[in-house]
Amino acid sequence: MSLNAVLSRIDANLNDSLERLFELIRIKSISTDAAFDADCRAAADWCAAQLSAIGIAAEPRKTIGKPMVVGHRKDAGARGPHVLFYGHYDVQPVDPVELWNTDPFEPQLVARDDGSRMIVARGSADDKGQLMTFVEAARAWIEETGSLPVPVTVLLEGEEESGSKSVGPFLAENTEELKADLALICDTSMWDRETPAISTMLRGLTSDEVTVKAANMDLHSGMFGSAARNPIHVLAKILAGLHDDAGRVTLPGFYDGVPDLPDDIKAMWDDLGFDGEAFLAEIGLSVPAGETGRTVLEQIWSRPTCEVNGITGGYTGDGFKTVIPAEASAKVSFRLVGDQDPQAIRAAFRKYVEESLPADCSAEFHAHGSGAALTIPFDDPFLAKGRKVLEEEWNKPAALIAMGGSIPIATDFQKTLGMQSLMIGFGLDDDRIHSPNEKYELTSFHKGIRSWARLIGELAETA
Amino acid sequence: MSLNAVLSRIDANLNDSLERLFELIRIKSISTDAAFDADCRAAADWCAAQLSAIGIAAEPRKTIGKPMVVGHRKDAGARGPHVLFYGHYDVQPVDPVELWNTDPFEPQLVARDDGSRMIVARGSADDKGQLMTFVEAARAWIEETGSLPVPVTVLLEGEEESGSKSVGPFLAENTEELKADLALICDTSMWDRETPAISTMLRGLTSDEVTVKAANMDLHSGMFGSAARNPIHVLAKILAGLHDDAGRVTLPGFYDGVPDLPDDIKAMWDDLGFDGEAFLAEIGLSVPAGETGRTVLEQIWSRPTCEVNGITGGYTGDGFKTVIPAEASAKVSFRLVGDQDPQAIRAAFRKYVEESLPADCSAEFHAHGSGAALTIPFDDPFLAKGRKVLEEEWNKPAALIAMGGSIPIATDFQKTLGMQSLMIGFGLDDDRIHSPNEKYELTSFHKGIRSWARLIGELAETA
Repeated sequence: MSLNAVLSRIDANLNDSLERLFELIRIKSISTDAAFDADCRAAADWCAAQLSAIGIAAEPRKTIGKPMVVGHRKDAGARGPHVLFYGHYDVQPVDPVELWNTDPFEPQLVARDDGSRMIVARGSADDKGQLMTFVEAARAWIEETGSLPVPVTVLLEGEEESGSKSVGPFLAENTEELKADLALICDTSMWDRETPAISTMLRGLTSDEVTVKAANMDLHSGMFGSAARNPIHVLAKILAGLHDDAGRVTLPGFYDGVPDLPDDIKAMWDDLGFDGEAFLAEIGLSVPAGETGRTVLEQIWSRPTCEVNGITGGYTGDGFKTVIPAEASAKVSFRLVGDQDPQAIRAAFRKYVEESLPADCSAEFHAHGSGAALTIPFDDPFLAKGRKVLEEEWNKPAALIAMGGSIPIATDFQKTLGMQSLMIGFGLDDDRIHSPNEKYELTSFHKGIRSWARLIGELAETA
Repeated sequence: MSLNAVLSRIDANLNDSLERLFELIRIKSISTDAAFDADCRAAADWCAAQLSAIGIAAEPRKTIGKPMVVGHRKDAGARGPHVLFYGHYDVQPVDPVELWNTDPFEPQLVARDDGSRMIVARGSADDKGQLMTFVEAARAWIEETGSLPVPVTVLLEGEEESGSKSVGPFLAENTEELKADLALICDTSMWDRETPAISTMLRGLTSDEVTVKAANMDLHSGMFGSAARNPIHVLAKILAGLHDDAGRVTLPGFYDGVPDLPDDIKAMWDDLGFDGEAFLAEIGLSVPAGETGRTVLEQIWSRPTCEVNGITGGYTGDGFKTVIPAEASAKVSFRLVGDQDPQAIRAAFRKYVEESLPADCSAEFHAHGSGAALTIPFDDPFLAKGRKVLEEEWNKPAALIAMGGSIPIATDFQKTLGMQSLMIGFGLDDDRIHSPNEKYELTSFHKGIRSWARLIGELAETA
């Protein structure tokens, strides 16, 4: 049976697979910072070359932003559904860089006392390690059997961490080329170290930046305070008003389209035995900060949020400067669920800000990425296949979970290409993605490759 | 009469005086940023060398912070009160540097259509241009007459813009050397372009920095929001609570020691014809932001304030990062009047913050500079001398004004050296000190030198 031979090959070649991942990690593809544009292009080139080398003819394709890597392979004997695999080669910024124990872009294989090993680097989990699990699975199939048993398209994005502005236009312009029977998305987590998971609910996101302006220049606070309006005070008051005392978001209409959690899903989640206290303790906290009367799991999976992700104004360097700044700004994002409308939420936020401004103040807005929430039907036939192979590989039934983070691409696949997604990933909650010392378990990488190899085989069996 | 010869010499040598000021301005002596330590030392060396060159034997003296420049000259024939002249050679940071029209440290002499000229550079007004008015006045007396008619000590500080931490210890350790009959401080403004002024009330200052901490690392807002406490939200709420709807500071006890403005002072201020609307219009504002029921002049001169001078937290670079940061911080300062106690105010602020923290949050504080407010008696004999010479030079009576900014050194002179100060300066409200494109009028520089030359002569006449 070819699957067993493919799996053995994966085991035997793990070190080579790891070396290739390390090569990709070393490319500093931070998409949110223009200083790393060339690195992002280099990462796209590297991915295209890797895919082409194993016979998935690929190239970096021009977009309005960072290049999109697209590759195709359809072997003569390929049967079963055509799959489109999606991952992203861009990573988050590394600041505060002084909190990293090692160079964020020089991957380290670190062994723990219990013998387990982890890959420490920016992008090790999000998403370079994850995307390479699929590429290495495809490689093993091709190297072992000479072909892929299902037709495969690979789509690798370079702007997932910076708003994915090119995805919409690119999918719209290349609908025929990219349309497949099923999307495979590897950017999610396992339930825990032993339990694989498939994400069937994803929160959406809308993000915005507001700059409050007052005087026409920075002012000396001795000469002009308190006669001059201080935009930091104005901004602080606006942000403080976004939540009420019960942790609910105060924007009018914010909860329109937020569904109650169905009883069967709530029951399934209760069965997961999630320990909210332990989850918070891991990050040094003890009390859930969100809406009162909701469990931690509800707060992070099925409830919408508003978070200020960044704020700046006035003098922020060493020492002190008695300035009243001309402006202050904040980056604000909303996690969305159910049928909440990203554009309506953004409009409500802007309206609230405008209405909160005192005399002499103005607000400027800069839209960042947005995408609606997504729910995968429990009776989806591909979902059954995914559950089967994950249980075979991990010897434990896959948990059907929700994800607090948004993967707007899954929404785009559904809307633009009319295609359902299977969201399988091998990250863990303690991977510290977006934070210093991000890591990816070696087990996740190894068994992740094996899981995809199984799924490729299983999908071919279906035909 | 030697004064007239001295004044003529000042007029004749103005270009040389200006060249010397430009040399000092070119030294990037930003005291609040450790990256400019060497520049601060260079500025101290330059000042000491300049003073020594004209026979005021000076040297940079070691302190716990930036060097203090001290020089003395007592000519055999010197009569009258021994004066100590104070200025500071350090300057504010230049950010946001992109808003400067020219290099902040390459002084430009810019001519207006009406023929007036201004010196544009960081420190041109605050305080290099001002301190050089005295040095050049002394130079003219010495070069013209071979001596100074009063005993002079010069004290130039390098930390005025960064909390003046060395001043207290340095004065305490050198009391005998520095004690004089009168301090002359040149770090204040004129009433307007035509009207000289002496500052008789100065607001004090206490400044503090607070960092609110929540989780033990930066978090992904998809994975942890809203279960995890966001310190930006906490900080925003705390800062929003510092003022009530009437613009009053809410800290308990904040208004203890704040005097009512005496009727005679209020009458004198009303006579100044200050146009609050025009004052605000100059900076693009129309409505006074401070306590309701107070005039703009009261708000900036005789009422205490609380201003947030800087805030930072989370991701503040280009693009967007969906992070819940581990911490957020703000720099907060309070302008003080009357008998408000700087330490009590700081303690009240910290207590308020601590009491406002929700579960799982902590606050760390970092104290910056502080000093009490100061009032000069209207019957001070030196004040009369100051008024006389200023009227002679400017052909207009000097306004007795208050200053919204604090000059803690004046308090220190009074407390540590038992010495009254005469605060005379030639800045203008539109000098943009602490802001991009700071400038100093050439008239301020020229007639400022002449004013000090007159005062030096007048003080000698007293004897």
